[in-house]
Amino acid sequence: MKPRIAVDMDEVMANVEPKFLDLYEQEFGRKLNRSDYWGKKIYGLREEEKYLRDALFEKGFFRDLEVMPGSQAVIRELMEDYEIFITTAAMEFRSSFEDKYDWLQEHFPFLHWKNFVFCGDKSVIRADYMIDDHVNNLEKFEGTGLLFTASHNAYEERFFRVNNWEEVRIFFKELKVNA
Amino acid sequence: MKPRIAVDMDEVMANVEPKFLDLYEQEFGRKLNRSDYWGKKIYGLREEEKYLRDALFEKGFFRDLEVMPGSQAVIRELMEDYEIFITTAAMEFRSSFEDKYDWLQEHFPFLHWKNFVFCGDKSVIRADYMIDDHVNNLEKFEGTGLLFTASHNAYEERFFRVNNWEEVRIFFKELKVNA
Repeated sequence: MKPRIAVDMDEVMANVEPKFLDLYEQEFGRKLNRSDYWGKKIYGLREEEKYLRDALFEKGFFRDLEVMPGSQAVIRELMEDYEIFITTAAMEFRSSFEDKYDWLQEHFPFLHWKNFVFCGDKSVIRADYMIDDHVNNLEKFEGTGLLFTASHNAYEERFFRVNNWEEVRIFFKELKVNA
Repeated sequence: MKPRIAVDMDEVMANVEPKFLDLYEQEFGRKLNRSDYWGKKIYGLREEEKYLRDALFEKGFFRDLEVMPGSQAVIRELMEDYEIFITTAAMEFRSSFEDKYDWLQEHFPFLHWKNFVFCGDKSVIRADYMIDDHVNNLEKFEGTGLLFTASHNAYEERFFRVNNWEEVRIFFKELKVNA
Protein backbone atom coordinates (compact mmCIF):
# COMPACT_ATOMS: atom_id res chain seq x y z
CA MET A 1 0.00 0.00 0.00
CA LYS A 2 1.23 3.46 -0.83
CA PRO A 3 1.97 5.81 2.05
CA ARG A 4 -0.55 8.57 2.42
CA ILE A 5 -0.24 12.36 2.32
CA ALA A 6 -3.02 14.54 3.76
CA VAL A 7 -3.07 17.87 1.93
CA ASP A 8 -4.83 20.94 3.27
CA MET A 9 -6.77 23.20 0.88
CA ASP A 10 -6.82 26.80 2.07
CA GLU A 11 -3.45 28.54 1.85
CA VAL A 12 -1.89 25.30 0.58
CA MET A 13 -3.77 24.28 -2.59
CA ALA A 14 -5.98 27.36 -2.73
CA ASN A 15 -4.46 30.79 -2.42
CA VAL A 16 -6.62 32.81 -0.06
CA GLU A 17 -4.25 35.74 0.37
CA PRO A 18 -4.95 37.53 -2.94
CA LYS A 19 -8.69 37.35 -2.27
CA PHE A 20 -8.33 38.80 1.21
CA LEU A 21 -6.11 41.57 -0.13
CA ASP A 22 -8.64 42.42 -2.86
CA LEU A 23 -11.54 42.43 -0.40
CA TYR A 24 -9.54 44.62 1.94
CA GLU A 25 -8.69 47.10 -0.78
CA GLN A 26 -12.27 47.24 -2.07
CA GLU A 27 -13.66 47.85 1.40
CA PHE A 28 -11.02 50.06 3.01
CA GLY A 29 -9.56 51.75 -0.05
CA ARG A 30 -5.95 50.87 0.55
CA LYS A 31 -3.62 48.11 -0.47
CA LEU A 32 -2.06 46.08 2.32
CA ASN A 33 1.66 45.42 2.20
CA ARG A 34 3.07 42.10 3.26
CA SER A 35 4.66 43.81 6.24
CA ASP A 36 1.18 44.81 7.45
CA TYR A 37 0.17 41.22 8.04
CA TRP A 38 3.31 39.10 8.03
CA GLY A 39 3.39 36.98 11.16
CA LYS A 40 -0.39 37.36 11.62
CA LYS A 41 -3.65 36.24 10.11
CA ILE A 42 -4.77 38.76 7.51
CA TYR A 43 -8.25 38.58 8.98
CA GLY A 44 -6.75 39.11 12.42
CA LEU A 45 -6.02 42.78 11.80
CA ARG A 46 -7.75 45.05 14.27
CA GLU A 47 -10.64 47.08 12.89
CA GLU A 48 -10.97 45.09 9.66
CA GLU A 49 -11.08 41.73 11.35
CA LYS A 50 -14.80 41.29 11.32
CA TYR A 51 -15.30 42.32 7.72
CA LEU A 52 -12.80 39.82 6.30
CA ARG A 53 -13.80 37.12 8.74
CA ASP A 54 -17.46 37.47 7.74
CA ALA A 55 -16.54 37.05 4.09
CA LEU A 56 -15.49 33.47 4.85
CA PHE A 57 -19.09 32.61 5.70
CA GLU A 58 -20.52 33.83 2.40
CA LYS A 59 -21.52 31.47 -0.38
CA GLY A 60 -19.00 31.69 -3.16
CA PHE A 61 -16.01 32.76 -1.09
CA PHE A 62 -14.17 29.48 -1.58
CA ARG A 63 -15.34 28.90 -5.16
CA ASP A 64 -13.06 31.26 -7.08
CA LEU A 65 -9.82 31.12 -5.12
CA GLU A 66 -6.63 31.00 -7.15
CA VAL A 67 -4.88 27.69 -7.41
CA MET A 68 -1.59 27.75 -5.52
CA PRO A 69 1.20 27.74 -8.10
CA GLY A 70 2.64 24.27 -8.67
CA SER A 71 0.08 22.42 -6.58
CA GLN A 72 -1.60 20.66 -9.50
CA ALA A 73 1.59 19.38 -11.09
CA VAL A 74 3.22 18.34 -7.83
CA ILE A 75 0.13 16.56 -6.47
CA ARG A 76 -0.27 14.70 -9.73
CA GLU A 77 3.39 13.68 -9.55
CA LEU A 78 3.11 12.58 -5.91
CA MET A 79 0.13 10.36 -6.77
CA GLU A 80 2.55 7.95 -8.42
CA ASP A 81 4.07 7.04 -5.08
CA TYR A 82 1.49 8.23 -2.53
CA GLU A 83 -2.19 8.14 -1.78
CA ILE A 84 -3.32 11.77 -1.66
CA PHE A 85 -6.20 12.81 0.60
CA ILE A 86 -7.48 16.37 0.62
CA THR A 87 -8.24 17.28 4.21
CA THR A 88 -9.89 20.62 4.79
CA ALA A 89 -11.37 22.09 7.96
CA ALA A 90 -14.59 23.02 6.16
CA MET A 91 -16.99 22.33 9.01
CA GLU A 92 -16.81 25.83 10.46
CA PHE A 93 -18.26 27.14 7.20
CA ARG A 94 -21.51 25.46 6.17
CA SER A 95 -21.65 27.58 3.03
CA SER A 96 -18.25 26.36 1.88
CA PHE A 97 -19.04 22.68 1.27
CA GLU A 98 -20.35 22.85 -2.28
CA ASP A 99 -17.88 25.58 -3.22
CA LYS A 100 -14.93 23.54 -2.05
CA TYR A 101 -16.23 20.40 -3.73
CA ASP A 102 -16.77 22.19 -7.05
CA TRP A 103 -13.40 23.92 -6.80
CA LEU A 104 -11.64 20.59 -6.31
CA GLN A 105 -13.53 18.99 -9.19
CA GLU A 106 -12.65 21.92 -11.45
CA HIS A 107 -8.99 22.32 -10.63
CA PHE A 108 -8.02 18.81 -9.53
CA PRO A 109 -10.15 16.56 -11.75
CA PHE A 110 -7.58 13.79 -11.42
CA LEU A 111 -8.42 13.38 -7.70
CA HIS A 112 -11.30 11.08 -6.73
CA TRP A 113 -14.04 12.32 -4.38
CA LYS A 114 -13.31 9.27 -2.23
CA ASN A 115 -10.15 11.11 -1.24
CA PHE A 116 -11.82 14.35 -0.13
CA VAL A 117 -12.30 14.94 3.59
CA PHE A 118 -14.25 17.85 5.05
CA CYS A 119 -13.64 17.93 8.76
CA GLY A 120 -13.11 20.13 11.78
CA ASP A 121 -10.58 18.74 14.23
CA LYS A 122 -7.89 17.14 12.06
CA SER A 123 -6.69 14.81 14.79
CA VAL A 124 -9.19 12.40 13.19
CA ILE A 125 -6.97 12.08 10.10
CA ARG A 126 -4.92 8.95 9.62
CA ALA A 127 -2.03 9.51 7.25
CA ASP A 128 1.74 9.35 7.05
CA TYR A 129 2.37 12.95 6.02
CA MET A 130 0.37 16.12 6.43
CA ILE A 131 0.93 19.35 4.51
CA ASP A 132 -0.83 22.16 6.33
CA ASP A 133 -0.40 25.83 7.17
CA HIS A 134 -1.96 25.51 10.62
CA VAL A 135 0.34 24.52 13.44
CA ASN A 136 -2.52 23.20 15.58
CA ASN A 137 -3.30 20.60 12.90
CA LEU A 138 0.31 19.46 12.74
CA GLU A 139 0.63 19.35 16.53
CA LYS A 140 -2.11 16.72 16.77
CA PHE A 141 -0.91 14.71 13.79
CA GLU A 142 0.74 11.36 14.43
CA GLY A 143 2.75 11.31 11.18
CA THR A 144 5.27 13.73 9.70
CA GLY A 145 4.00 17.27 9.35
CA LEU A 146 5.14 19.78 6.75
CA LEU A 147 4.32 23.39 7.54
CA PHE A 148 3.29 25.28 4.41
CA THR A 149 4.27 28.91 4.81
CA ALA A 150 1.49 31.43 5.36
CA SER A 151 1.59 34.82 7.01
CA HIS A 152 0.17 33.55 10.28
CA ASN A 153 2.86 30.86 10.71
CA ALA A 154 5.82 32.91 9.52
CA TYR A 155 7.71 32.72 12.82
CA GLU A 156 6.90 29.14 13.72
CA GLU A 157 9.97 26.92 14.03
CA ARG A 158 8.79 23.53 15.29
CA PHE A 159 7.97 21.93 11.95
CA PHE A 160 9.73 21.27 8.70
CA ARG A 161 8.83 24.25 6.56
CA VAL A 162 7.92 24.26 2.89
CA ASN A 163 7.57 27.68 1.30
CA ASN A 164 5.97 26.54 -1.93
CA TRP A 165 5.07 23.45 -3.93
CA GLU A 166 8.51 23.16 -5.46
CA GLU A 167 9.86 22.64 -1.95
CA VAL A 168 7.19 19.99 -1.37
CA ARG A 169 8.35 18.24 -4.52
CA ILE A 170 11.97 18.35 -3.38
CA PHE A 171 11.10 17.04 0.10
CA PHE A 172 9.46 13.91 -1.29
CA LYS A 173 12.07 13.49 -4.01
CA GLU A 174 14.80 13.43 -1.38
CA LEU A 175 12.84 10.92 0.68
CA LYS A 176 12.77 8.66 -2.35
CA VAL A 177 16.47 9.06 -3.07
CA ASN A 178 17.33 8.26 0.55
CA ALA A 179 14.92 5.31 0.80
CA MET B 1 -7.09 11.64 26.34
CA LYS B 2 -10.40 9.87 25.85
CA PRO B 3 -10.53 7.02 23.36
CA ARG B 4 -12.39 7.86 20.20
CA ILE B 5 -15.46 6.36 18.55
CA ALA B 6 -16.21 7.07 14.88
CA VAL B 7 -19.96 6.86 14.30
CA ASP B 8 -21.51 6.51 10.86
CA MET B 9 -24.68 8.44 10.00
CA ASP B 10 -26.80 6.61 7.44
CA GLU B 11 -28.43 3.46 8.77
CA VAL B 12 -26.70 4.00 12.13
CA MET B 13 -27.76 7.44 13.42
CA ALA B 14 -30.21 8.17 10.62
CA ASN B 15 -32.78 5.60 9.62
CA VAL B 16 -32.85 5.42 5.83
CA GLU B 17 -34.99 2.30 5.55
CA PRO B 18 -38.42 3.89 6.23
CA LYS B 19 -37.73 6.58 3.64
CA PHE B 20 -36.76 4.04 1.00
CA LEU B 21 -39.86 1.98 1.79
CA ASP B 22 -42.09 5.06 1.49
CA LEU B 23 -40.50 6.09 -1.80
CA TYR B 24 -40.88 2.57 -3.11
CA GLU B 25 -44.53 2.40 -2.17
CA GLN B 26 -45.27 5.84 -3.65
CA GLU B 27 -43.59 4.97 -6.94
CA PHE B 28 -44.47 1.30 -7.40
CA GLY B 29 -47.74 1.08 -5.48
CA ARG B 30 -46.82 -1.76 -3.21
CA LYS B 31 -45.32 -2.13 0.25
CA LEU B 32 -42.07 -4.03 0.50
CA ASN B 33 -41.76 -6.70 3.17
CA ARG B 34 -38.55 -7.18 5.06
CA SER B 35 -38.14 -10.53 3.33
CA ASP B 36 -38.05 -8.74 -0.04
CA TYR B 37 -34.81 -6.95 0.79
CA TRP B 38 -33.26 -8.70 3.78
CA GLY B 39 -29.66 -9.58 2.97
CA LYS B 40 -29.54 -6.96 0.19
CA LYS B 41 -29.45 -3.22 -0.31
CA ILE B 42 -32.98 -1.91 -0.66
CA TYR B 43 -31.82 0.16 -3.60
CA GLY B 44 -30.18 -2.94 -5.07
CA LEU B 45 -33.51 -4.52 -6.07
CA ARG B 46 -33.72 -5.20 -9.77
CA GLU B 47 -36.03 -2.92 -11.72
CA GLU B 48 -36.45 -0.34 -8.98
CA GLU B 49 -32.78 0.09 -8.36
CA LYS B 50 -32.29 3.22 -10.40
CA TYR B 51 -35.29 5.05 -8.99
CA LEU B 52 -34.28 4.66 -5.35
CA ARG B 53 -30.62 5.18 -6.10
CA ASP B 54 -31.37 8.46 -7.90
CA ALA B 55 -33.31 9.69 -4.88
CA LEU B 56 -30.06 9.75 -2.91
CA PHE B 57 -28.72 12.47 -5.18
CA GLU B 58 -31.65 14.82 -4.65
CA LYS B 59 -31.45 17.85 -2.38
CA GLY B 60 -33.40 17.17 0.76
CA PHE B 61 -33.09 13.39 0.77
CA PHE B 62 -30.87 13.34 3.86
CA ARG B 63 -32.55 16.26 5.62
CA ASP B 64 -35.67 14.59 7.01
CA LEU B 65 -34.48 11.09 7.86
CA GLU B 66 -35.75 9.63 11.10
CA VAL B 67 -33.37 9.54 14.01
CA MET B 68 -32.38 5.97 14.82
CA PRO B 69 -34.05 5.04 18.12
CA GLY B 70 -31.72 5.41 21.08
CA SER B 71 -28.88 7.04 19.15
CA GLN B 72 -29.20 10.44 20.81
CA ALA B 73 -29.29 9.15 24.37
CA VAL B 74 -26.52 6.60 23.90
CA ILE B 75 -24.18 8.99 22.06
CA ARG B 76 -24.66 11.57 24.76
CA GLU B 77 -23.88 8.96 27.39
CA LEU B 78 -20.79 7.74 25.53
CA MET B 79 -19.45 11.30 25.37
CA GLU B 80 -18.64 11.06 29.06
CA ASP B 81 -15.94 8.50 28.39
CA TYR B 82 -15.23 8.84 24.67
CA GLU B 83 -14.55 11.40 22.00
CA ILE B 84 -17.32 10.99 19.42
CA PHE B 85 -16.65 11.78 15.75
CA ILE B 86 -19.41 11.53 13.17
CA THR B 87 -17.89 10.01 10.05
CA THR B 88 -20.13 9.85 7.01
CA ALA B 89 -19.31 8.94 3.43
CA ALA B 90 -21.03 12.05 2.10
CA MET B 91 -18.64 12.77 -0.77
CA GLU B 92 -20.54 10.68 -3.30
CA PHE B 93 -23.51 13.01 -2.85
CA ARG B 94 -22.69 16.67 -3.37
CA SER B 95 -26.27 17.61 -2.58
CA SER B 96 -26.14 15.92 0.81
CA PHE B 97 -23.57 18.14 2.55
CA GLU B 98 -25.84 20.90 3.84
CA ASP B 99 -28.67 18.45 4.55
CA LYS B 100 -26.44 16.24 6.66
CA TYR B 101 -24.94 19.22 8.47
CA ASP B 102 -28.36 20.68 9.28
CA TRP B 103 -29.69 17.29 10.32
CA LEU B 104 -26.82 16.83 12.76
CA GLN B 105 -27.25 20.33 14.18
CA GLU B 106 -30.98 19.73 14.62
CA HIS B 107 -30.93 16.27 16.17
CA PHE B 108 -27.52 16.19 17.84
CA PRO B 109 -27.01 19.77 19.02
CA PHE B 110 -24.71 18.54 21.78
CA LEU B 111 -22.10 17.49 19.20
CA HIS B 112 -19.58 20.09 18.00
CA TRP B 113 -19.01 20.66 14.26
CA LYS B 114 -15.32 20.06 14.93
CA ASN B 115 -16.29 16.42 15.32
CA PHE B 116 -18.11 16.06 11.99
CA VAL B 117 -16.29 14.36 9.13
CA PHE B 118 -17.63 14.15 5.58
CA CYS B 119 -15.44 11.78 3.63
CA GLY B 120 -15.38 9.07 1.01
CA ASP B 121 -12.86 6.34 1.74
CA LYS B 122 -13.02 5.86 5.52
CA SER B 123 -9.56 4.35 5.75
CA VAL B 124 -8.53 7.98 6.41
CA ILE B 125 -10.26 7.88 9.82
CA ARG B 126 -8.15 7.59 12.93
CA ALA B 127 -10.14 6.28 15.86
CA ASP B 128 -10.27 3.46 18.38
CA TYR B 129 -13.77 2.21 17.58
CA MET B 130 -15.96 2.49 14.51
CA ILE B 131 -19.70 1.87 14.42
CA ASP B 132 -20.76 1.37 10.81
CA ASP B 133 -23.15 -0.68 8.72
CA HIS B 134 -20.73 -1.07 5.82
CA VAL B 135 -18.32 -3.94 5.97
CA ASN B 136 -15.86 -2.29 3.59
CA ASN B 137 -15.42 0.57 6.06
CA LEU B 138 -14.73 -1.79 8.94
CA GLU B 139 -12.34 -3.89 6.85
CA LYS B 140 -10.03 -0.94 6.36
CA PHE B 141 -10.30 0.31 9.92
CA GLU B 142 -7.32 -0.15 12.22
CA GLY B 143 -9.33 -0.12 15.47
CA THR B 144 -12.25 -2.20 16.70
CA GLY B 145 -15.22 -2.25 14.35
CA LEU B 146 -18.84 -2.72 15.39
CA LEU B 147 -21.18 -3.74 12.59
CA PHE B 148 -24.54 -2.02 12.94
CA THR B 149 -27.21 -4.27 11.47
CA ALA B 150 -28.76 -3.23 8.17
CA SER B 151 -30.43 -5.34 5.52
CA HIS B 152 -27.37 -5.41 3.28
CA ASN B 153 -25.08 -6.79 6.01
CA ALA B 154 -27.55 -9.28 7.51
CA TYR B 155 -25.45 -12.36 6.76
CA GLU B 156 -22.04 -10.91 7.51
CA GLU B 157 -20.18 -12.70 10.31
CA ARG B 158 -16.71 -11.20 10.50
CA PHE B 159 -17.46 -8.34 12.86
CA PHE B 160 -19.00 -7.86 16.26
CA ARG B 161 -22.62 -7.11 15.49
CA VAL B 162 -24.85 -4.56 17.21
CA ASN B 163 -28.51 -4.70 16.24
CA ASN B 164 -29.52 -1.41 17.82
CA TRP B 165 -28.26 1.40 20.05
CA GLU B 166 -29.09 -0.46 23.24
CA GLU B 167 -26.58 -3.10 22.17
CA VAL B 168 -24.04 -0.36 21.52
CA ARG B 169 -24.61 0.92 25.04
CA ILE B 170 -24.14 -2.56 26.49
CA PHE B 171 -20.95 -3.16 24.49
CA PHE B 172 -19.26 -0.07 25.90
CA LYS B 173 -20.68 -0.63 29.37
CA GLU B 174 -19.13 -4.09 29.44
CA LEU B 175 -15.82 -2.69 28.25
CA LYS B 176 -15.88 -0.32 31.21
CA VAL B 177 -16.76 -3.04 33.70
CA ASN B 178 -13.97 -5.25 32.40
CA ALA B 179 -11.38 -2.45 32.23
